[in-house]
Amino acid sequence: MNAVTPAAEVRAPADLIARRPLGQSLEAPFYVGEEFFGLDIEAVFARHWLFVAAEAELPEPGDYVTVTIGPYSVIVVRDDDEDVRAFHNVCRHRGARILNEERGSVGNIVCGYHRWTYGVDGRLLHAESQAPGFDPKCFSLRSVHVRTVAGLVFLCLAETPPDDFDEVAARVEPYLAPHNLGKAKVATQIDLVENGNWKLTMENNRECYHCAGGHPELQACYFPTYGYEEHNLPPTLRPAYERYLQADADARTTYESLGLPYAAIEELDTRTTGFRVQREPLDGAGESYTQDGTAACKRPLADFPTARLGRLSLHLQPNSWFHLMADHAVTFTAIPLAPDRTLVRTTWLVHADAVEGSDYDLDTLTKVWKATNDQDAVFVARAHQGISSPAYLPGPYGPTEEQVEAFVNWYVTRLKEHLAHLSHLERQR
Amino acid sequence: MNAVTPAAEVRAPADLIARRPLGQSLEAPFYVGEEFFGLDIEAVFARHWLFVAAEAELPEPGDYVTVTIGPYSVIVVRDDDEDVRAFHNVCRHRGARILNEERGSVGNIVCGYHRWTYGVDGRLLHAESQAPGFDPKCFSLRSVHVRTVAGLVFLCLAETPPDDFDEVAARVEPYLAPHNLGKAKVATQIDLVENGNWKLTMENNRECYHCAGGHPELQACYFPTYGYEEHNLPPTLRPAYERYLQADADARTTYESLGLPYAAIEELDTRTTGFRVQREPLDGAGESYTQDGTAACKRPLADFPTARLGRLSLHLQPNSWFHLMADHAVTFTAIPLAPDRTLVRTTWLVHADAVEGSDYDLDTLTKVWKATNDQDAVFVARAHQGISSPAYLPGPYGPTEEQVEAFVNWYVTRLKEHLAHLSHLERQR
Amino acid sequence: MNAVTPAAEVRAPADLIARRPLGQSLEAPFYVGEEFFGLDIEAVFARHWLFVAAEAELPEPGDYVTVTIGPYSVIVVRDDDEDVRAFHNVCRHRGARILNEERGSVGNIVCGYHRWTYGVDGRLLHAESQAPGFDPKCFSLRSVHVRTVAGLVFLCLAETPPDDFDEVAARVEPYLAPHNLGKAKVATQIDLVENGNWKLTMENNRECYHCAGGHPELQACYFPTYGYEEHNLPPTLRPAYERYLQADADARTTYESLGLPYAAIEELDTRTTGFRVQREPLDGAGESYTQDGTAACKRPLADFPTARLGRLSLHLQPNSWFHLMADHAVTFTAIPLAPDRTLVRTTWLVHADAVEGSDYDLDTLTKVWKATNDQDAVFVARAHQGISSPAYLPGPYGPTEEQVEAFVNWYVTRLKEHLAHLSHLERQR
Repeated sequence: MNAVTPAAEVRAPADLIARRPLGQSLEAPFYVGEEFFGLDIEAVFARHWLFVAAEAELPEPGDYVTVTIGPYSVIVVRDDDEDVRAFHNVCRHRGARILNEERGSVGNIVCGYHRWTYGVDGRLLHAESQAPGFDPKCFSLRSVHVRTVAGLVFLCLAETPPDDFDEVAARVEPYLAPHNLGKAKVATQIDLVENGNWKLTMENNRECYHCAGGHPELQACYFPTYGYEEHNLPPTLRPAYERYLQADADARTTYESLGLPYAAIEELDTRTTGFRVQREPLDGAGESYTQDGTAACKRPLADFPTARLGRLSLHLQPNSWFHLMADHAVTFTAIPLAPDRTLVRTTWLVHADAVEGSDYDLDTLTKVWKATNDQDAVFVARAHQGISSPAYLPGPYGPTEEQVEAFVNWYVTRLKEHLAHLSHLERQR
Repeated sequence: MNAVTPAAEVRAPADLIARRPLGQSLEAPFYVGEEFFGLDIEAVFARHWLFVAAEAELPEPGDYVTVTIGPYSVIVVRDDDEDVRAFHNVCRHRGARILNEERGSVGNIVCGYHRWTYGVDGRLLHAESQAPGFDPKCFSLRSVHVRTVAGLVFLCLAETPPDDFDEVAARVEPYLAPHNLGKAKVATQIDLVENGNWKLTMENNRECYHCAGGHPELQACYFPTYGYEEHNLPPTLRPAYERYLQADADARTTYESLGLPYAAIEELDTRTTGFRVQREPLDGAGESYTQDGTAACKRPLADFPTARLGRLSLHLQPNSWFHLMADHAVTFTAIPLAPDRTLVRTTWLVHADAVEGSDYDLDTLTKVWKATNDQDAVFVARAHQGISSPAYLPGPYGPTEEQVEAFVNWYVTRLKEHLAHLSHLERQR
Repeated sequence: MNAVTPAAEVRAPADLIARRPLGQSLEAPFYVGEEFFGLDIEAVFARHWLFVAAEAELPEPGDYVTVTIGPYSVIVVRDDDEDVRAFHNVCRHRGARILNEERGSVGNIVCGYHRWTYGVDGRLLHAESQAPGFDPKCFSLRSVHVRTVAGLVFLCLAETPPDDFDEVAARVEPYLAPHNLGKAKVATQIDLVENGNWKLTMENNRECYHCAGGHPELQACYFPTYGYEEHNLPPTLRPAYERYLQADADARTTYESLGLPYAAIEELDTRTTGFRVQREPLDGAGESYTQDGTAACKRPLADFPTARLGRLSLHLQPNSWFHLMADHAVTFTAIPLAPDRTLVRTTWLVHADAVEGSDYDLDTLTKVWKATNDQDAVFVARAHQGISSPAYLPGPYGPTEEQVEAFVNWYVTRLKEHLAHLSHLERQR
């Protein structure tokens, strides 16, 4: 009979962060508490670079998307010089949310409340009937840091963003660039709300220990041996592992002949902009995430001599991952909505000139990840429910859950840095 | 790039109140925080006079309405002497809510749980099977201060209500009385829930800076120059302004010939029972808030020689406003439901003998304010959403937003008084 | 005019507990506050014996029910030795909720996330691909104390359960055992969510002062004189009281001839496992809780020579009550879901071999308590609403509300003990 922690022993976040042991899942308050939810927004989402859209979502000047991150709403807009810019979606008059649609196209950015009018560069162009001393230059939209990398748009809400982003961008760009995402278009985008904490969504994403029984659609194209090695391979995975070894050898030959970088770089918890990138074979036909592994789009993303490029997979801390194939690409982000609710946004990208119906069929394109996301949502909800019990105890991460642990390590380091930063500010006062 | 306030700088309500600068919208916690929501109920709604019903809603002895104000439920009932009384809607036995309908008629006030029975004067008349020492006189319903002014019912939840109410009543009664609201009936009442803080509802009500593009139905009868003066008039409003000057000159002649007081009295933030009253012309036919300005009800509220009386408008702090025309009157109240939800109740009053279908048509009567309220609800929701972003900064009130500022000044003064009162109680302990 | 408590006087739970006066309902925060809700789960529901199921719900090895108590989910399962066991429904790996159905049958207990597999004795039988040092013996499911009494299953979430349970079981078992519940089956189970605090559900259950007008269906079979005595009997109840005295005399003769214990034992607030048990006559035909008092099931629960056994009623603190008749039994539990939401689960038990349609009709069987529960839900919701007003004052319990007061006494004593226990832990640190 194990004792269940009484409330008298409830600890402050700082204590829980300090005493976190390695190799185990986090204590419950990290996942279920309101206090950590606020801390996660502040320390993680408001301070790090986040993937928020494909450039394909804003092809022309004036095209915009609005992005919600915790309590923030941000306008991401292509300006008249075709650069991507980002602004807080808050009128400088009395604070109204300015753009209320998820996406659209504008000439100027006009607040519908009192018609304050801003340029797509954020400058206040007009405010009716102001007193003589009113200076429009003091009331530009507040800007947000934004960067594009190989067709992907990233923003950072912090005043001073992490300074290692350029270096990470330089290292992943050679992997991504051949897929030509700057010339892609959005085939479709699906939002799914998972009933669990965003970190459980991420933990689920960072292992395939659950894939064996849990993802029938995925298994036709994805090697379920992901994360396993020779020494800890379950006997049932032996045939798949043999196929994987053969496919991997073939793939390396292809990658080298095409000059495509493929080696794994894994810096998930050793830097602020944690990442992992690798090109690897797929199972079945080896071309795409489809039910038999064949390409879902006849028109490839770029002028590749073969469709059999497997998957280029990029994992970014804190909340995004990407799979780029020869025929299409899929991007994923996990956005916290509440301690127990997380939005997972999945975007399928195909060549800008690919035609739905003839070049690709939307059901075929989306089937594997749509099904897999739905299955993962069930796992995440069950994890959240179980962890909500006072009887929950942190359990051990096994050998195939190394990336889960790397995610958690990265996360806890960010919280520690943030608390140190707050203490520093406090002392200065 | 402006810095977004880190959580470390989150301040207590008392600090935020103390540092509030003039001429700007409030800091975000005033609008979005749970703490201020509780404070608003306690310091504003539980301590000041509130308009809660027209006398027309309880014409006969025993007629009652139940009024919800924050966590309070109050029975407003006409007693056997035809006086209006108010009681907390809480049984003195085990606290059950007694009357569960919005309105009705009773002989006695009987709690449905254990049949404790009170008179309409609040006295406990019967409680079954009590012990010998039980004294019913100790268990009357708890009364609430109530006053009627020219057919309007006000209550105050405080033990000691603000003492300037009589003076304000004496000053506004001559404006209101000619409209004979005591002899009116309710044509209809519409409740609308706005997804924003109640103060944003009030700020929206206290300016017409947003009217230009925002209220097409209103513009046919309401001068959109409200709040503007010669020197800050936008050129597009020039024609309307010319019409207004002419209509105002005509109207003054009429008012003086009829002995109707019309001059503006504006004491919105200079006293506890803040108010503003004025009679002004309407645009179009000048008779009523309808799509062409003509009267919506053939039977006038009183025996006026002309329907062209414009509008008598009364604004009361904290949460009500009124428009009285020759043909009908409209009352409005904003009731906080949650930090981000506000009930706006609109009541249309016509002469008690006016007959729906022949004297008035409900759609015509309600069209302008129904549409305008719906449009305002969108503005209020957008304001609330924008202010919820940590990137929101208080912005400047312009020259046409003077009554908005007066509302905010009044409100902040009330909070200061309340905190001072609490400190005083604390020191006495 | 009574003063309504200002927020400045809001007290900590410990103060409110300490100053609680006898003979009155509790102050509002006990019923409506989040703080007391957490305390109630911790001090009452996580530390005392709770009735959670009839053994009839898990007749065979592998049969299970999942029980939710506040944030806890517990698996109650019959093991291979036919003993009833209970485990926290939380996987020892990463905390997923394991069994997601309300009831079912399993061979082993398998977590659907990563296939960790436990026996019905809680031992971890298999976890795929673990590191060499991994010891399954350290990862058994966490067990929960469980006991069965005369076919009823009780569990206690505390590490050290109250030690008077055996004694209470020994005293009530002779009353319960003749009804043979171990051989019963579930005819049906109905869950009802009441919009009120669980203590208001219990207070409503522990008196019949509200029965007179409130429960028309119940009145045909249940003596509405319950809780009244000669000296405080309202005149309208006189005829029922005369019937009761006659029925009671008859019933005692029957009980004594059959050797059925019937005397009231009432230890509701004088011990940790508070209880009350008594066998009493029913009104009408005297056989069952039906519209005319005749048996609802032709096949009796046991081989009784007469169906006219009235009701054996058992009340247990904190949250259950039971009525056992000759023909069927009904069990009730109240489970807190939120400060203002309570689940009332009602289970009708009949002989395992009784056949629906021929031996009993479900509508007839459930009609009285289904209607009565629905009526009580309205009372509980009204009580909760009224108490939520700051104008609520605790009111007096009358002579017929003695068991209500005993419930409240028991409850407050538990909170006091718990706070003392926490202080003790605090001092030890």
